[in-house]
Amino acid sequence: MDIVIIGGVAAGMSAAARLRRLDEQASITVVEKSGHISFANCGLPYYVGGVITDRDALLLQTPEAIKARFNIDVLVNTRAEAIDRTAHTVTVTDLTTGAARRLHYDRLVLAPGATPVRPPIPGIERALTLRNVEDTDALAAAAQQARTAAVIGGGFIGLEVAENLVRRGLRVALVEATDQVLAPLDPEMATPVHDALRSAGVDLHLGCAVTAIGDHDVTLADQTVLDADLVVAAIGVRPDSQLARDAGLECAPNGGIVVDRNLTTSDPHIYAAGDAVAKHDAVDGSLVLVPLAQTANLQGRRIADRIMGREIGDRPVLGTAIVGLFGLQAATVGCNEKRLRAAGRPYRAIHTHPTDHAGYYPGATQMALKLLVDPYTDAILGAQGVGPKGVDKRIDVIATAMTGHVMASDLAELELAYAPPFGSAKDPVNMLGFVDENLVTAKARTIQWHQLAQAQDSGAVLIDVRSPAEFAAGAIPGAINIPVDELRERMDEVRALAEGHEVIVHCAVGVRGHVACRILAGHDIPARNLDGGYKTWAAGTRA
Amino acid sequence: MDIVIIGGVAAGMSAAARLRRLDEQASITVVEKSGHISFANCGLPYYVGGVITDRDALLLQTPEAIKARFNIDVLVNTRAEAIDRTAHTVTVTDLTTGAARRLHYDRLVLAPGATPVRPPIPGIERALTLRNVEDTDALAAAAQQARTAAVIGGGFIGLEVAENLVRRGLRVALVEATDQVLAPLDPEMATPVHDALRSAGVDLHLGCAVTAIGDHDVTLADQTVLDADLVVAAIGVRPDSQLARDAGLECAPNGGIVVDRNLTTSDPHIYAAGDAVAKHDAVDGSLVLVPLAQTANLQGRRIADRIMGREIGDRPVLGTAIVGLFGLQAATVGCNEKRLRAAGRPYRAIHTHPTDHAGYYPGATQMALKLLVDPYTDAILGAQGVGPKGVDKRIDVIATAMTGHVMASDLAELELAYAPPFGSAKDPVNMLGFVDENLVTAKARTIQWHQLAQAQDSGAVLIDVRSPAEFAAGAIPGAINIPVDELRERMDEVRALAEGHEVIVHCAVGVRGHVACRILAGHDIPARNLDGGYKTWAAGTRA
Repeated sequence: MDIVIIGGVAAGMSAAARLRRLDEQASITVVEKSGHISFANCGLPYYVGGVITDRDALLLQTPEAIKARFNIDVLVNTRAEAIDRTAHTVTVTDLTTGAARRLHYDRLVLAPGATPVRPPIPGIERALTLRNVEDTDALAAAAQQARTAAVIGGGFIGLEVAENLVRRGLRVALVEATDQVLAPLDPEMATPVHDALRSAGVDLHLGCAVTAIGDHDVTLADQTVLDADLVVAAIGVRPDSQLARDAGLECAPNGGIVVDRNLTTSDPHIYAAGDAVAKHDAVDGSLVLVPLAQTANLQGRRIADRIMGREIGDRPVLGTAIVGLFGLQAATVGCNEKRLRAAGRPYRAIHTHPTDHAGYYPGATQMALKLLVDPYTDAILGAQGVGPKGVDKRIDVIATAMTGHVMASDLAELELAYAPPFGSAKDPVNMLGFVDENLVTAKARTIQWHQLAQAQDSGAVLIDVRSPAEFAAGAIPGAINIPVDELRERMDEVRALAEGHEVIVHCAVGVRGHVACRILAGHDIPARNLDGGYKTWAAGTRA
Repeated sequence: MDIVIIGGVAAGMSAAARLRRLDEQASITVVEKSGHISFANCGLPYYVGGVITDRDALLLQTPEAIKARFNIDVLVNTRAEAIDRTAHTVTVTDLTTGAARRLHYDRLVLAPGATPVRPPIPGIERALTLRNVEDTDALAAAAQQARTAAVIGGGFIGLEVAENLVRRGLRVALVEATDQVLAPLDPEMATPVHDALRSAGVDLHLGCAVTAIGDHDVTLADQTVLDADLVVAAIGVRPDSQLARDAGLECAPNGGIVVDRNLTTSDPHIYAAGDAVAKHDAVDGSLVLVPLAQTANLQGRRIADRIMGREIGDRPVLGTAIVGLFGLQAATVGCNEKRLRAAGRPYRAIHTHPTDHAGYYPGATQMALKLLVDPYTDAILGAQGVGPKGVDKRIDVIATAMTGHVMASDLAELELAYAPPFGSAKDPVNMLGFVDENLVTAKARTIQWHQLAQAQDSGAVLIDVRSPAEFAAGAIPGAINIPVDELRERMDEVRALAEGHEVIVHCAVGVRGHVACRILAGHDIPARNLDGGYKTWAAGTRA
């Protein structure tokens, strides 16, 4: 059997190696348009920043090593030009010699990946992108000559590039056309990321598009001109599906190649995987683009299984992702609130600010966690986390819970490994479950940060149950300070305030606010707790 | 309603605080025999070691603070003497004044915890234990006077105490009567822990009981005499169920108080939670003792729910646990191989040695992971991990998968947050799933380290597919070195070796061995791969 694979990085090489492990006899040929295969694409920004100093470390495999281990023929610097679906051939061009040839296939695997979006800005040809080893060499070389840089785009790659250019000693501006970086985060969760960027000296421009790229500057829509010896475009990527489209294979409106549950395209002899394909969203069932290495690797493996006869079944994607920057971790899984709201889908949101491990053990740091839950089924719809440490673990646990269809309130029962250096007896994930359970059983009612102003406008009374010192250090406009431990003795005062008004309670993060609401409930004063407390409100209103 | 709670630490105080949040009017009284409530019992060893320097940090709550916040009456230094189940009273003694009184209850919660086991060794009265704040003060004071210490018992507490006494500058011997520390680990997984202890200068005595404790030494069964100005007994704990037993409440053969799915004892007005109760094991359904803080806290919370009328349902326990020592993490969940074997329960074992994050990103460290799987259902039965970093995360993910009934081969599909500083595109947990899937689909067959010698005795040929350099640095007796990349060209040689013999293949950790087995399978030579490779074999045979 002749198998041709277009693309020699994550999906393509996973498919190739697994195919060989499943079939020692098949002829397997990998066609890669860049000069390298199996390179560490997620590591590229860190080579630019000098975190990874050995360039060879990026090159996980060479064509020679792959031949020796797996007896796979790898053609690098070779571009697939056209597929002849009737003849079962692919025409490829050797980009070094210009020579064209045809490769026969019994099965064809498309794993071409995605290409950086280049918006039609005057001067865009000056902008560098970061997608492969050649890009990395160019960016590292340019960074050595430059003193200033502008990074266009505040997504995962944009942030990683910005961080690494700062590491290189450049003065870096980050320009993002929307109001926040990291679109998968909701705005109040992006605030700590904005803070980290600014603290690290990044000149952050939000809600502002680049209108022109000059020789040593970029101009923004608000006429700001930023010094930029170096410009990096990291606006996003789009599926590299032209070859598939030209061959008449079905593509989704979002540009991704359409595949069925067996990763088969509209041609039964052609499979596709990785960043180039449209995926089935695990939460809402829509066709989405999820250009992530882990998904690409897994799909590559699955295609090999399928070609060798196994029914592989539908694998919807959660899109779990993380980025580290300036000592902060920001991670997400599933849907965010923006998307749920846009879709008109009901949800409840829970914000907490736990520490990564027991507060009494040295080195504990605070993180922000957010959980989104289906209010009818209690299913977890998504989660977000931002903090210096331990966010990766909690998002991974929640992603696993989502895969196992663990309900939000059952997060309370998860048995997670606890010792003081690693967690808390009530882990942050358990705490999310406790809060959810209180909402499910109506032991708690909450109000979100973005609903507070309107509630106050409608006459709600806001009681801040923190200490007088905390209140003095910064309070929500209109709040009245009655510390939680004084509530019982000052109940007449509260009762007078509550007369004819809704009562809303808040503390720093929501814990004392919950206790206060329960005390008030015990005195027949219904109250809502500000979810996530002052901290979430402050992050949201500053966002 | 009068509620009396015996025990004011994890389970007791969780129950008390939750009860108040659910009922503002109930009378809630907590009886605690030590001088402190809600203390950080898991943090105690770290105060002894000077990691936690502020003693007040251990005291998470005071009776005064609990009264102010929750209107709960806390009686410290007060011992519950007897329960009169007919009169619904508990007799308690104030240990400071000696005064006795009776407390009426409508509902009684037993959360007395566990007490350290003190074996009948001559001199045992000299041994200190570590269970509460008073113990900690005594141990910290003794450590200041001592130059040498012997810790008896290699469980979680014993190891934490040993580490912290080393931190204090003491010369420490650790004596464990069985052949390994950390009984929840299988022997090959305990080896790295033994190595870490020895590297840190701990004088480790395994398989050797203490026969006598002298004034400044301890004597072992093999006549070894160890200097020990200070002796700590950390042999284990037993449920503090005497009060319950005296009151005629049902207790299990293991000493734990028996409770039903609603945490109710054999008396419907009396509930019990925490280290004192027998728990329902999530894997094999047996009644087990799981003296862990997280379970205690959760059960306390659940009792409050139950007293307030909620059906809480059965919550079997996985017993997820972790310990950190000398920069190593050792964590477990579910059953280990020893227990499965003793129970005669079929299982398959998988050993891997992945890095905590992408190998090309600086700071990656190797861990050992082990997964135990039901061969008929593919259900996960347990997991163990040992390594410098990232073990906590993987065990938490597997514990969550077990709770969500994610099958072992489906670990392959988990979408875990990946960026090079945090994981790998194929996370260690995914890799366990890949290996399991290969076993399920018969794409791989493995042999365990402890089965190898017998297979070789029965004539099996062992091929080491590592590089000649690796082979030269240390090899398994009888192994023949044919590097994986030379297998295809040396197939005649392999075929000659295989003639009339079973073929077993191994590499360093199992990955190249798997590739080699697949190559051999493609040439009609069936072979088994040594699970976990040389590394697991070496750890097991050294154990």
